Amino acid sequence: MTSPTLPQGFQAAGVSCGIKVAANALDLSLFVSDRPCTAAGVFTTNRVVGAPVIVSRSRVPSDQILGVVLNSGNSNACTGQRGQDDARAMTSAVADLLGCDGEQILVCSTGVIGHFLPLEKIRSGIPQAYSALANNPTAFQRAARGMMTTDTVPKQHAVEVQLHGKSVAVAGAAKGAAMIAPNMGTMLAVLMTDAALTAAQADQLLRHAVDRSFNCISVDGHMSTSDTVLLLANGASDVEVRAESDLALLQQAVDDVCYDLSQKIIRDAEGAEHFVTIEVSGLATREDAVRIAKTVADSPLVKTAITGNDPNWGRIVSAAGYAGIPFSEQDCSLIVNGTSLYESGRPVEFDEATVSQSMRTGEVLIQLKFILGEAEATFWTSDLTAEYVRLNADYTT
Amino acid sequence: MTSPTLPQGFQAAGVSCGIKVAANALDLSLFVSDRPCTAAGVFTTNRVVGAPVIVSRSRVPSDQILGVVLNSGNSNACTGQRGQDDARAMTSAVADLLGCDGEQILVCSTGVIGHFLPLEKIRSGIPQAYSALANNPTAFQRAARGMMTTDTVPKQHAVEVQLHGKSVAVAGAAKGAAMIAPNMGTMLAVLMTDAALTAAQADQLLRHAVDRSFNCISVDGHMSTSDTVLLLANGASDVEVRAESDLALLQQAVDDVCYDLSQKIIRDAEGAEHFVTIEVSGLATREDAVRIAKTVADSPLVKTAITGNDPNWGRIVSAAGYAGIPFSEQDCSLIVNGTSLYESGRPVEFDEATVSQSMRTGEVLIQLKFILGEAEATFWTSDLTAEYVRLNADYTT
Repeated sequence: MTSPTLPQGFQAAGVSCGIKVAANALDLSLFVSDRPCTAAGVFTTNRVVGAPVIVSRSRVPSDQILGVVLNSGNSNACTGQRGQDDARAMTSAVADLLGCDGEQILVCSTGVIGHFLPLEKIRSGIPQAYSALANNPTAFQRAARGMMTTDTVPKQHAVEVQLHGKSVAVAGAAKGAAMIAPNMGTMLAVLMTDAALTAAQADQLLRHAVDRSFNCISVDGHMSTSDTVLLLANGASDVEVRAESDLALLQQAVDDVCYDLSQKIIRDAEGAEHFVTIEVSGLATREDAVRIAKTVADSPLVKTAITGNDPNWGRIVSAAGYAGIPFSEQDCSLIVNGTSLYESGRPVEFDEATVSQSMRTGEVLIQLKFILGEAEATFWTSDLTAEYVRLNADYTT
Repeated sequence: MTSPTLPQGFQAAGVSCGIKVAANALDLSLFVSDRPCTAAGVFTTNRVVGAPVIVSRSRVPSDQILGVVLNSGNSNACTGQRGQDDARAMTSAVADLLGCDGEQILVCSTGVIGHFLPLEKIRSGIPQAYSALANNPTAFQRAARGMMTTDTVPKQHAVEVQLHGKSVAVAGAAKGAAMIAPNMGTMLAVLMTDAALTAAQADQLLRHAVDRSFNCISVDGHMSTSDTVLLLANGASDVEVRAESDLALLQQAVDDVCYDLSQKIIRDAEGAEHFVTIEVSGLATREDAVRIAKTVADSPLVKTAITGNDPNWGRIVSAAGYAGIPFSEQDCSLIVNGTSLYESGRPVEFDEATVSQSMRTGEVLIQLKFILGEAEATFWTSDLTAEYVRLNADYTT
């Protein structure tokens, strides 16, 4: 697989400025555009938010954004007024180099909560990142690495669509690992496109995509203070968006990038050994389907059964039962990796060893089918392993 | 500590009838009264419920109950009509021996979901349990053991209060271990009293006690299909309940037993190494306080930080932030084991090593203080360990 490339007019860099303890660990990233972008953002709905969320949220939607600065190793959350001053100082330092206003730069931070930023390190890192800016796969990947916390691999995706005889690109980078739960823009992701979009169009494309991708994943049900997904559109492709059908094509491209990045987050979840897809169908509304899927996804008993390759289906059905959606047992059937385990409220005889064997591939498809309507939803999650516990019992001390 | 005793007029037994794989493991329990009891029950609010829940729920409140039959090793849940027939057959087998109607017997089952009961084993075990019935601490403890699944110790408590110059006793036995989450009668518990209560009084006493005890604990946030708490009052103390103050005294006794049993469940939670008390105060309503406490209790990141004796307070504050209760960071302060970590939205300098050391005792007190009102709630939970994962990854296969 070739490494993804950046859309036209964008440059990226990732450098090490010493926020992370490990020597030479990349911890500062920069994305800039050679012309003003329209920009949209989706942020955490947590009542306790990081200072960069407060600052960036106030700057989108916009049609004057020139770049995004991100650091890992410190989330600058729960840091009060000083934290907000620090976040603004980061954007000003970038703006000074680009010769623009601080308001034209967005900012994201991820890492431990409750510590003040090492601002001098970041101030010395920013010119270093600026010098390293480039439009090539290596620079893009270094920027994706600079966003990582406990992620083990950088997460990037790019797609190209043809519009009016020209190429339009959408690319993105994300970080995840833990403190991942849906119903907000989850984690950090920056999407860039060389399409020409109005700020309203960018906002519309991003919200649609996030709702079905980042909002439909959960590692541990813990909503972060820093979740942010940004979309920057700089128009460098020189392709006009003329019709609704053009927008639909771009929606598909933005959706593709968001689906891919959100699933990469689940595949790289802390300690995860299984990638779990939960399809819930036959509900009255999509919201009902999502709620059941999320409840199943967040049950530690479902997650640990999957860790043990154990088709212990009672845990799945009982989790659906406490999701808060009214149904009767007879309304519900369950299929795991293609084998029917529970049909219209009754257990089905099945070969446990065969289903368990199918789970050892690391891929589990849970299909919960109801007879209450036509709505459906798909949700992605990971299992819960002893390694997740080990990683999170040792994070700060 | 002496082993708790049964109230007057009650007998208990616990025997092994071969439901559990381990040889001689107690798996069938019986509680009977020598005269009809008033009886109240609180049950799971899961949409998917065990057959014994359906049967017992239909039989309370009542003033004609003579006993409760319980088995462990199989929850008789998700077993359709045959499961309900089996649950009724268990009560009929007991009623035949007592010379009463099947409707006068309550039934509970706990264990793996989705397997039909081994009814022949249970049918042969019931006469064995009937022969072993006795009113002494040994019989009571064997009954408590017969309810256990992955519990490592039996859970019992008894209190005595003086009323009109006579002694009135309240005693109970419970099982817990996992699939424990609040907002319903959680797990199995049987409470017995020799007080004379109307069915309405029994119901009132039980609901009040459960709301602040079993409904305020969580091991893993997974609501069971079988949760049941029963209170049987047989009046054998010959003490009349004359005034509201009498009822208040009995309420205190029932509360005491429920608090004790629910905390024993947390102390014996699967794989648990820490007992965690979460006090949330200063909210507009008790419901708001409970919701924040439960969200903190169910966060895998908070739980694993506690496993690691890590005062990683950002995880606690950020969990409070996604509980769905509106507040600003400045409204919130956090104290862990007596040390202030976060005050009115700002981090406080503190000695991490000292707080970490205090957590190594296995007792953690989390106090979240808000300035939004006068309501408060206390909630109890356990940590999340690699041992919990191991136990639940290996449960059926």
